[in-house]
Amino acid sequence: MSSIFGVCFRVTTFGESHGHGVGAVVDGCPARLPLSEADLQPQLDRRRPGQSLLTTPRQESDRVSILSGVENGLTLGTPIALLVTNRDPRPEDYGESASVPRPSHADYTYQAKYGIHASSGGGRASARETVGRVAAGAVAEKLLRDWHAVEIVAWVSAVGHVQAHGVDPGCVDRAAVERSPVRCPQGEAAAEMIKAIEEARGEGDSVGGIITCVCRNVPAGWGEPVFDKLSARLAQAMLSIPAVKGFEIGSGFAGTRLRGSVHNDAFVLKNNRLGTQSNHSGGVQGGISNGEPVLFRVAFKPPATIAREQKTVDYAGRSVVLAVKGRHDPCVVPRAVPIVETMAALVLADLALCQRRQRREDEAPPAKPV
Amino acid sequence: MSSIFGVCFRVTTFGESHGHGVGAVVDGCPARLPLSEADLQPQLDRRRPGQSLLTTPRQESDRVSILSGVENGLTLGTPIALLVTNRDPRPEDYGESASVPRPSHADYTYQAKYGIHASSGGGRASARETVGRVAAGAVAEKLLRDWHAVEIVAWVSAVGHVQAHGVDPGCVDRAAVERSPVRCPQGEAAAEMIKAIEEARGEGDSVGGIITCVCRNVPAGWGEPVFDKLSARLAQAMLSIPAVKGFEIGSGFAGTRLRGSVHNDAFVLKNNRLGTQSNHSGGVQGGISNGEPVLFRVAFKPPATIAREQKTVDYAGRSVVLAVKGRHDPCVVPRAVPIVETMAALVLADLALCQRRQRREDEAPPAKPV
Amino acid sequence: MSSIFGVCFRVTTFGESHGHGVGAVVDGCPARLPLSEADLQPQLDRRRPGQSLLTTPRQESDRVSILSGVENGLTLGTPIALLVTNRDPRPEDYGESASVPRPSHADYTYQAKYGIHASSGGGRASARETVGRVAAGAVAEKLLRDWHAVEIVAWVSAVGHVQAHGVDPGCVDRAAVERSPVRCPQGEAAAEMIKAIEEARGEGDSVGGIITCVCRNVPAGWGEPVFDKLSARLAQAMLSIPAVKGFEIGSGFAGTRLRGSVHNDAFVLKNNRLGTQSNHSGGVQGGISNGEPVLFRVAFKPPATIAREQKTVDYAGRSVVLAVKGRHDPCVVPRAVPIVETMAALVLADLALCQRRQRREDEAPPAKPV
Amino acid sequence: MSSIFGVCFRVTTFGESHGHGVGAVVDGCPARLPLSEADLQPQLDRRRPGQSLLTTPRQESDRVSILSGVENGLTLGTPIALLVTNRDPRPEDYGESASVPRPSHADYTYQAKYGIHASSGGGRASARETVGRVAAGAVAEKLLRDWHAVEIVAWVSAVGHVQAHGVDPGCVDRAAVERSPVRCPQGEAAAEMIKAIEEARGEGDSVGGIITCVCRNVPAGWGEPVFDKLSARLAQAMLSIPAVKGFEIGSGFAGTRLRGSVHNDAFVLKNNRLGTQSNHSGGVQGGISNGEPVLFRVAFKPPATIAREQKTVDYAGRSVVLAVKGRHDPCVVPRAVPIVETMAALVLADLALCQRRQRREDEAPPAKPV
Repeated sequence: MSSIFGVCFRVTTFGESHGHGVGAVVDGCPARLPLSEADLQPQLDRRRPGQSLLTTPRQESDRVSILSGVENGLTLGTPIALLVTNRDPRPEDYGESASVPRPSHADYTYQAKYGIHASSGGGRASARETVGRVAAGAVAEKLLRDWHAVEIVAWVSAVGHVQAHGVDPGCVDRAAVERSPVRCPQGEAAAEMIKAIEEARGEGDSVGGIITCVCRNVPAGWGEPVFDKLSARLAQAMLSIPAVKGFEIGSGFAGTRLRGSVHNDAFVLKNNRLGTQSNHSGGVQGGISNGEPVLFRVAFKPPATIAREQKTVDYAGRSVVLAVKGRHDPCVVPRAVPIVETMAALVLADLALCQRRQRREDEAPPAKPV
Repeated sequence: MSSIFGVCFRVTTFGESHGHGVGAVVDGCPARLPLSEADLQPQLDRRRPGQSLLTTPRQESDRVSILSGVENGLTLGTPIALLVTNRDPRPEDYGESASVPRPSHADYTYQAKYGIHASSGGGRASARETVGRVAAGAVAEKLLRDWHAVEIVAWVSAVGHVQAHGVDPGCVDRAAVERSPVRCPQGEAAAEMIKAIEEARGEGDSVGGIITCVCRNVPAGWGEPVFDKLSARLAQAMLSIPAVKGFEIGSGFAGTRLRGSVHNDAFVLKNNRLGTQSNHSGGVQGGISNGEPVLFRVAFKPPATIAREQKTVDYAGRSVVLAVKGRHDPCVVPRAVPIVETMAALVLADLALCQRRQRREDEAPPAKPV
Repeated sequence: MSSIFGVCFRVTTFGESHGHGVGAVVDGCPARLPLSEADLQPQLDRRRPGQSLLTTPRQESDRVSILSGVENGLTLGTPIALLVTNRDPRPEDYGESASVPRPSHADYTYQAKYGIHASSGGGRASARETVGRVAAGAVAEKLLRDWHAVEIVAWVSAVGHVQAHGVDPGCVDRAAVERSPVRCPQGEAAAEMIKAIEEARGEGDSVGGIITCVCRNVPAGWGEPVFDKLSARLAQAMLSIPAVKGFEIGSGFAGTRLRGSVHNDAFVLKNNRLGTQSNHSGGVQGGISNGEPVLFRVAFKPPATIAREQKTVDYAGRSVVLAVKGRHDPCVVPRAVPIVETMAALVLADLALCQRRQRREDEAPPAKPV
Repeated sequence: MSSIFGVCFRVTTFGESHGHGVGAVVDGCPARLPLSEADLQPQLDRRRPGQSLLTTPRQESDRVSILSGVENGLTLGTPIALLVTNRDPRPEDYGESASVPRPSHADYTYQAKYGIHASSGGGRASARETVGRVAAGAVAEKLLRDWHAVEIVAWVSAVGHVQAHGVDPGCVDRAAVERSPVRCPQGEAAAEMIKAIEEARGEGDSVGGIITCVCRNVPAGWGEPVFDKLSARLAQAMLSIPAVKGFEIGSGFAGTRLRGSVHNDAFVLKNNRLGTQSNHSGGVQGGISNGEPVLFRVAFKPPATIAREQKTVDYAGRSVVLAVKGRHDPCVVPRAVPIVETMAALVLADLALCQRRQRREDEAPPAKPV
């Protein structure tokens, strides 16, 4: 229930931040896909904290092992179990949370839900939980790339009040994103974002941001009406990432202020197939991909864990002043870039496999519409 | 896959806009809940087009019948089948869509997905598909109200550039919302919204908008980490509504510009339980409800179907000028208000039942944290 | 939960025996399959009571309507809703069950589960519940026949102590089965079975029996290890039929007494593919079809509802003598033949669609092993 | 899909016999259940081969580790990941299977399904796959025992032609079962079974058998009509075990020969609740538990892997004589006893949690019927 995602490409994740390990089991990946740890490690490395001064100095080596489902470099069609052992836990940093629920963190709600919560750290609400997702997402990405040439690229498009303009979703790639430690491919904005993050850190504070993501070469026809629309599944996937408070696809909230005559994406002929002139739809119409780039934005709140003192109450309702010690990111969006790509990959791989049902075994590949 | 929603409270919807009927089957509703058609009809009536000059004049009577699962006014615990017969179909209005895919509509993507599409109207991409959801959602709402006193109220908070300010989510009710045909409880904004819609209609155009929704009395503890977070399921639910392009909860996109020290919701003692001073979290922390009002916003694009001529191409790629005739809403948000409430109810009822697993049969109700 | 079956080809059934109607929604049926009511009615007619002296004289017309998902004789890929209106309910026949739980019926367990039960008849435990399944199963059969040439034939192989021998699963067809009112294609056995049923009826009693079913032309490769083995899903499907107490595939219980050297099915070359010399496996090895006929047997207990007086106790524990009036089958196996075929079709259609995931979109159909 | 079981208590298993490890993730186990590796190891030890001369001498230490979901000896409500590292693989023993599909094994069907199969051993079709289930099943058993006092006991009731009579399902316990290496609590039958197994081994052959299982103290009300009947889920669970070809509950196949007047289980008053005089129903009526012991039997075919030479063909259709070397069980039923108990526990734990939905949060525990 709580930790399973997908119908045809199904991922189960597990692991607390301070237990023995975190990981995932991928059930439903087709057989004969070339796969090794080397396919998975790069995104895990990008997710890892301690990569730059902008993120927490905590050192996690995060080496992933494939425990099952792969032999001689090929998937077997059976469940692929992925494990990353935990190191460097330092549980003592979070000791106070036993009696004082940290504001805007999950301490209180986990306690309310389960009648118990992990003695140290945030349990499944911790960012470390995303390790298993990222490992599984790399499997999904391999499938999408090898079988469908799908490309997924996410980048930081806003930090606090600083926004990046002019990034071209048609050609931006991960190399361009990696050039800046803040993972914004627009140089000037990147510099200002770094400044904003440093300022927040300097003040013992944190700052939010926005990640934009594009998925190119998604063929027309992916996404299941009604409840499993591509856009709906992406929304669920993104809101499942810790600290996310918003999602918009295509024109999003700004599109609500447009007239239909402006917003509609007229069809045009592109390379012998139908495409659209504009892309206010964000590549999705009626919940189904239309062959244009799938384009969406994800809003991250400022991290709840800050060094500054906060007035709050403990579980007994007594006023306290909380000053959380330990290692904390002043801004999560740079590290969240591969997580957004991961969740997009999990959604697309699942819907790609679901779409297989529409074709007879003995039928030729579907004619392109046109 | 495509038309089933929920894990414990599971809804299957069916029906095309121009077939024999639309409806839903609710599987998992507990037994002994008082229920009759009279509980379902009001939301269906609110959803129905033709209620005011602001919406399409199409007349649909939309009387719902309970076919199963209820006897002597009580649910039996068995599947509740709900049926609304279609009337007044007029399929001829949509004839041209056979050769020309309407821009930003689902004609093209359904064709790409299925290799076929309903000869008339948009099939499952039509707004009529939502009838089944609304009927099922009314069952969910009855359960939430009777067993948990949950109140769900949605209203139009923006139409085009017009925004409503000052609506109090703590006390706004459906009666206040119903006072205006545009379903905005803030009088001056409502008047301007109506004007904006009339203008768009007068120009053969359409306009988008935003719906805000609050769910009060949701107890702390609902929502399943990791992928079935309350916020993630709400996001999926809202993006599954036709024409929705965005979702934000609590501070949402605006929250990305705040510092953590401002954004964090300090705990305070409220009526002998822990509450929060502010509600930037929108009632959800770590994906689990915290007892504060669940508050979110949903962005609707301007309807794709407009009377104005549009330059586009047909399936063969030939340039055409399209002028869609028929009955169309210049703005969907007033009618979408009960649909947003419906989807919120379906999510909450499902997560409420999922939460039952946490308690031993012979155990007393969980002590409130504090 | 309770009334949904399948993962890729998903069926939701609904309806009590004495409510407004019974039916099903099929979600996941591929588009462009030719389908009409005429494809569904024959199996419903075979399931209907009152067809011969051997079954209850109750008259149910059971005309099925397709409410959605089909247009111009082709499936749209959207949910197919199927409805059969209830007639001739006569609820008064079952009045006594309000205070006395009928032995070996579901009255007591429904009460324990739901704290309520349908005031008349057995609710979802009634044989009438199977109407929705049979309608949905006919859709599955159409898909299997049109796309894969799969043939499913079930017949009565035992009634009480009478067993049919010598029926050839390689060629028996439904016409042969229909020739006898007891649905046993072996003439002498059929005559004795009829006698056994008449005897039981004459004594106000009932008698059990066994149905054997063969599925021919199932290609090798269907069935999902581990928990969704073809054999496991068939077992679930068959045990979900009212009155079923046993399932065996291939050699079944008798195979437990064989040595491995006798039981093993040696491979041989058959029509340019690998086949097996014997078929103790019943067409399934490791949970996956091997291309040989899938062959299994289903045990039905004698119907619980009998005219003879029974000593039992009421809900209050007081001794009573129960004599159930009304219309009852002395033996359910003849009518259950199409239900067994239905459930086999639902399992096979689901696993057939699940198997699609294993092939790349642009790949040729899989080479036959050999 | 293939490796996930359960709805509310959901288990995902993974691992090939010759990969890095085997295990499971349990999602949905309630919080605050006392749990440690010591609760899991006993059933894994019983499942392990090499315990007696009757089973393969292969030595697997099979120490289980809990990777997540448990802290300070209590479950957290989050996924419980369980891992057993593989040792002593000896892949070379199975080398020939690359070119010759072993008769009645899964080599051929895995190849047909996936276009690939594990180079050594049977991959997920191997008995080693059951390690993950047994570990997960022990969690389920802990939950059932602690919260509901449910007792599950299985034993070998037949090996080849030898049958055990007179075992009392009302009181047989695991200690009695463990007294004999063949896990038959009836002494004389046990001795004959051992002889039958030794004979088969001496002849390079194998032999089948039957396991009977009883689940005591299952409260009335578990099991979901229609498709998730307790009996249907048990049937699926048992047929999902390697080598199982049959399942029967209560009177099973023998019950088909009884008259209804004999077969019906009359109600009687037992300890202030309703019980039944006989138990032909096997504790399940209408798919729902009735409070009596749940009693069923599972048929295992003779193991396919035998030392004797077998005439068969290779993948190219050429005649070969196959003589499989390596370590093989002449009879699987003694080792399968804890696996049957495991699968019963997984079904019961899942249906127990599903049943929680029927009760209001603020309601007292349901009154016992009577």
